[in-house]
Amino acid sequence: MCEANVFIIQDEPDPENPGELFLEAVDQIIPEGENLWRLTSIFGEQKTLVGRIHSMRLVDHQVLFQRLEP
Amino acid sequence: MCEANVFIIQDEPDPENPGELFLEAVDQIIPEGENLWRLTSIFGEQKTLVGRIHSMRLVDHQVLFQRLEP
Repeated sequence: MCEANVFIIQDEPDPENPGELFLEAVDQIIPEGENLWRLTSIFGEQKTLVGRIHSMRLVDHQVLFQRLEP
Repeated sequence: MCEANVFIIQDEPDPENPGELFLEAVDQIIPEGENLWRLTSIFGEQKTLVGRIHSMRLVDHQVLFQRLEP
């Protein structure tokens, strides 16, 4: 399956440490407003996040967000 | 491999027709500025797009963007 793991990073990504795992096995990423994102995992778990996308590397199953103040 | 196909939609997605295929087999999606995105396929092809993410469904290998005026 081609889900991705969503991580929160502070500044630039560290190759040794992708950051804080926010939600794993994410299928859907849908914006719900200015910098507001709803994530849904393949298990049906949903979380929302205020931030911006830093980068997505789908082959590595990795999506990095930087958190913003709500 | 877990790349995705990036489509451009006009309004809401049509289940019969995901939209205009902009770039297939996309690995990396990286923002480069306000609403500016650089996409890189697993074949090394790069394209930039001015738009906003409508939705991502990774298990379906589908990322939908709505184009914005540059």
